[in-house]
Amino acid sequence: MSDISRSYKYENIAAQIVHLIKTGTLRPGGGIPSVRQLSDQEQVSISTVTQAYYLLEAQGWIEARPQSGFYVCETLPIALPEPEISLPTPDPTTVSVWDLTMMIINDPFNPNLIQMGAAYPNPELTAMHKLNRILASIARKIDIKSSLYEAVEGNESLRVQIARRAINTGCHLSPDDIIITAGCSEAVSLSLRAICKPGDTVAIESPICFDQLQCLETLGLKALEIPTHPRNGISLQALRFAIQQTPIQAVMVISNFNNPLGSYIPEVNKKALVDLLAEYEIPLIEINLLGELYFGDLHPKVCKKYDQTGNVLLCSSFSKDLCPAYRIGWVVPGKYKAKLKQLKYASNLSTSTLPQLAIAEFLSSGSYDVHLRRVRRIYARNIAALSQAVNRHFPEGTRMTRPAGGFVGWIQLPEVVDSLVLYKQSIKAGIAITPGYIFSTTDQYRNFIRLNAANWNDNSERVIQHLGELIKKSF
Amino acid sequence: MSDISRSYKYENIAAQIVHLIKTGTLRPGGGIPSVRQLSDQEQVSISTVTQAYYLLEAQGWIEARPQSGFYVCETLPIALPEPEISLPTPDPTTVSVWDLTMMIINDPFNPNLIQMGAAYPNPELTAMHKLNRILASIARKIDIKSSLYEAVEGNESLRVQIARRAINTGCHLSPDDIIITAGCSEAVSLSLRAICKPGDTVAIESPICFDQLQCLETLGLKALEIPTHPRNGISLQALRFAIQQTPIQAVMVISNFNNPLGSYIPEVNKKALVDLLAEYEIPLIEINLLGELYFGDLHPKVCKKYDQTGNVLLCSSFSKDLCPAYRIGWVVPGKYKAKLKQLKYASNLSTSTLPQLAIAEFLSSGSYDVHLRRVRRIYARNIAALSQAVNRHFPEGTRMTRPAGGFVGWIQLPEVVDSLVLYKQSIKAGIAITPGYIFSTTDQYRNFIRLNAANWNDNSERVIQHLGELIKKSF
Repeated sequence: MSDISRSYKYENIAAQIVHLIKTGTLRPGGGIPSVRQLSDQEQVSISTVTQAYYLLEAQGWIEARPQSGFYVCETLPIALPEPEISLPTPDPTTVSVWDLTMMIINDPFNPNLIQMGAAYPNPELTAMHKLNRILASIARKIDIKSSLYEAVEGNESLRVQIARRAINTGCHLSPDDIIITAGCSEAVSLSLRAICKPGDTVAIESPICFDQLQCLETLGLKALEIPTHPRNGISLQALRFAIQQTPIQAVMVISNFNNPLGSYIPEVNKKALVDLLAEYEIPLIEINLLGELYFGDLHPKVCKKYDQTGNVLLCSSFSKDLCPAYRIGWVVPGKYKAKLKQLKYASNLSTSTLPQLAIAEFLSSGSYDVHLRRVRRIYARNIAALSQAVNRHFPEGTRMTRPAGGFVGWIQLPEVVDSLVLYKQSIKAGIAITPGYIFSTTDQYRNFIRLNAANWNDNSERVIQHLGELIKKSF
Repeated sequence: MSDISRSYKYENIAAQIVHLIKTGTLRPGGGIPSVRQLSDQEQVSISTVTQAYYLLEAQGWIEARPQSGFYVCETLPIALPEPEISLPTPDPTTVSVWDLTMMIINDPFNPNLIQMGAAYPNPELTAMHKLNRILASIARKIDIKSSLYEAVEGNESLRVQIARRAINTGCHLSPDDIIITAGCSEAVSLSLRAICKPGDTVAIESPICFDQLQCLETLGLKALEIPTHPRNGISLQALRFAIQQTPIQAVMVISNFNNPLGSYIPEVNKKALVDLLAEYEIPLIEINLLGELYFGDLHPKVCKKYDQTGNVLLCSSFSKDLCPAYRIGWVVPGKYKAKLKQLKYASNLSTSTLPQLAIAEFLSSGSYDVHLRRVRRIYARNIAALSQAVNRHFPEGTRMTRPAGGFVGWIQLPEVVDSLVLYKQSIKAGIAITPGYIFSTTDQYRNFIRLNAANWNDNSERVIQHLGELIKKSF
C-alpha cells in the first residue's frame, strides 16, 4: 500500500473508534478491539491499526495497559475545534518582528519562569548526557590533526550517517549531497542567501515560526504569507494563485511539523507542491526540523523525496530531538550545492568538529532510534494532556490545533483577547508563553498563543488553569 | 613611556645591533652585550632591550643560550629586500575569486602534500589536547539545562575572560560588549552584513587574505584595494584620498598581523586610522586574528583602543592560537551591537556551548599565557628559518616580507614567474603553496606566493630548495 493511501486509512480507523466512543458503544475504562481483531475485521494491515491506536492514544482517547491491550480513557478528550485555515493578506510585506522577538528571546534564561513559551525541547528528553559521554571519550583520544578546520561540507562520518537515515524519509542521498551547518537555522539562512537577493519575495506558510521571519527580515526579503490549514498545511491552490499573480523567488515551508501548527504536509500535497514549483522553476526551501518527533508510527516523508530537478533545498538539524546546544544541522541543497558551499565557507569556514563526531557515533551506535521511540511517546502524551487541560480551563470559543508531531500547540483565543497583553500578564504570573503576533508579518494572530508542552508535568494542569483565569479577565 | 615611542626605540636598538653584526664588530658565535648592560648604556628600559633582542632572535640574527645570554648566530640572515608598497587599481572592483579559492581549499586535507599553503597553525602548537581534556571533564559533569541553546551573545563566562584579556590590547570592555561567533570569519561576515548592503564598496588592504575577499564576494560587495606597505600597513594618505573620491561604506583592515604580509599597523597609524574614519563616519571592521602571535615582547594594541564613537567593530578568534576546530571567535561591535545580535540570531541562533566553556576554563586557569609564550617563540624562529631558506634557494630578485607576528611569509618572485603555474608544478611535486592571485581582486600579485612556516621542520629547508628549483625553471 502506498504511504498516501495508508495515511488516509489509519485516520479513518481512528475516526471510527472515536465515533464508537462518542456514541457510547465503547465506554470509558472499557477495552477496545485488539489490533489483530480490527486488522482482520477491517482488512487493513496490523501497522495501519497500530498507527490509528497511537494517534488515538496521543489524542487522549485511549491508553495502553502493559500486557493487556488498549482501553478507553477514563477522562475523555472532548476535542477542541481547530482554528480555521489562515487568511493572511495577499500582498508581500516587509518583515519587521525583531522588536517583538527581542522581547521574548531572553525568557528561556529566566529561571523564575515556567517555560511554556520558547519551542525548546525538554532538556531531560535531549540525549545530552549520552552524547557528552561519547564526546568526552572522543575528545580524549582524537588525533592532533583534528585540531585543524573540518572540511567546509562537514565531517564525512556524520554525512554518511545522515545519508543512511534519509532513506527513512524517502530520500536516496550520497554523503556528498549534504553540507553540515550550525543548526537548521544556518541551513535556512544559507539557503535563502543562495537563492534570493534583498527585495525578493518568499512565499511562506501562515502562521510561521518567528525564527524564519527573522531570517527573512535580516536578509531584506519580503514575505508573502499563504493560507495554511491547521492540519493539511499550505494551500496549494492559494500558492498557485499567488505564483501566477506575484513574482516569487522562493517558497519556504516546514514540511514536518509546522511550528506553531504541528501540522505536516500530507504526502500527496508534498508531491504536488514539488511538482508545482518545478513547473514554475521556483526553488523550495523545505524545513524538516521536527520530522523525527512524529506521533504514532507514521514516519512522514520529506518533499525532497519527490524532487526530480534538484530544486528542493532540505534543511534539518538534531536540535529538537538530540541536543540544541551542539548546534549541528544540515542542508541537502540540490542544484544549489556549489553556492551553498561557498556561502558556508564565507560565513564561518566550517562547523565545530567534536559535536559532529559525537553525533555521528551516537547515530552509528543505533542509540538514536531507541531514544526517539521514548521521546515521541512522551511528547505525544504531553500534547494530548495540554489539549485536554486547555479544553477544561480556557473559555468557550477557544480552538486548538491537533499536532501530529513536535511539542507545541497553537491556540486561538476569543477575539477579545490580545496575546501581547496576555503575554505581559502571564510573565508577571511567572509563566512564559509566546504571543501570536510574532508568527506573521501582520497582526492577524493577535488573539493566538503558542504553548510548549515539552516540559509537561504534574504542575502543568494548574499552570493552564492559571492562564485560563488570566484570559477570562480579558472579557 | 608611551607604547608608540617605545616601539620606535626597540626597533632602533635592534637596528644598531644589526649594524654592529654586519660591520663585523659583533661576530657570528660571539656574545653580545647583556640586556642590563645595553639598558644602562642606552638609557632605555630593560623591557625595551628585551624586546629588541626578541626581534633580533626572531629575525635570526642572535640566539639565546640558556643561563648564558644572547649570542650572534653562526649562520646570519642576510635579509631579503621587502616587497614595495602595493599599488592596486584605484577603482572599486567586483570580487570574484571563488574559482581560484576552490582550487586550493582542499589541499590541507591531502595527506600527500607538504603543507606550506593554507594559513593553518601547526596542529602540534594548538592547545587541542589540553582543551579537549577540559572539555571532556566539563561534558561529564554539566547540568542537563546546558543541553539547550546558549544565549545569542554567547556564554557569559567566556565573555568575561575575553573582556579581561582585552585590557592587554588597550581595550576596557564589559562582557556585554562582546558577542561570541563561530570563528573570526563569522564575526567579519556578520559585521559586514550589519553595515553594508549589496553593491556597497569596502576599502581593504592590498594584498588581503582571500577569506575576506570571499566574504565580500558572497555579500555582493565591491572591494577598493588601498596601497599597503609590507611593514607599516595600509597607507592612510591613500585611504583618505580614496574616501574623498569614492563613496565607501566600510573599511576593513587586519590590524595585527596582516595575512599575507605579517605586518601590523603601527600604533600611531591605528589611532590616525580610527580618527580618520570617525571624521568621515565610516565604520571600521578591524580583524585582530593573529594579534596574540606577536614576535618579541611587543604586545600590539588594537584600533578599538582608540575608538571613541563605537565606530570600530573588532573581530577576533581563538582559531590561530588555540584550536581552529573549536570554531570560537568574537566580535566587539560597538554601536552596531543590536544589529549584530539580530544577525547572529537569524544566522544560527547561538554558538555551540561546550567549546565555549572549555576555552573559558582554559583562559581562567592561566594556561593561555604559558601556551602563547611557547608558541610565539617557535613561530618567530620558523619565520626566520623560512626567510633564510628563501634567501639561500630562491633566485635573485626575490623579495620577502619581515613578519612581526603570525606564521606566514609573503614572497615576491621575479616578474617572469607565474604563481599559478608554479602552484600546479609544486602540487605535482607534493608541496602545497598559495598563489598570489587570490590575495587581490585583480591579477596584480601574479608573481607572489604565500608560504606558511607554521610546520617548519628539519625537512623544510629541502622543500624550499625544491621550490627554488621549480621557480628557476620558469626562467
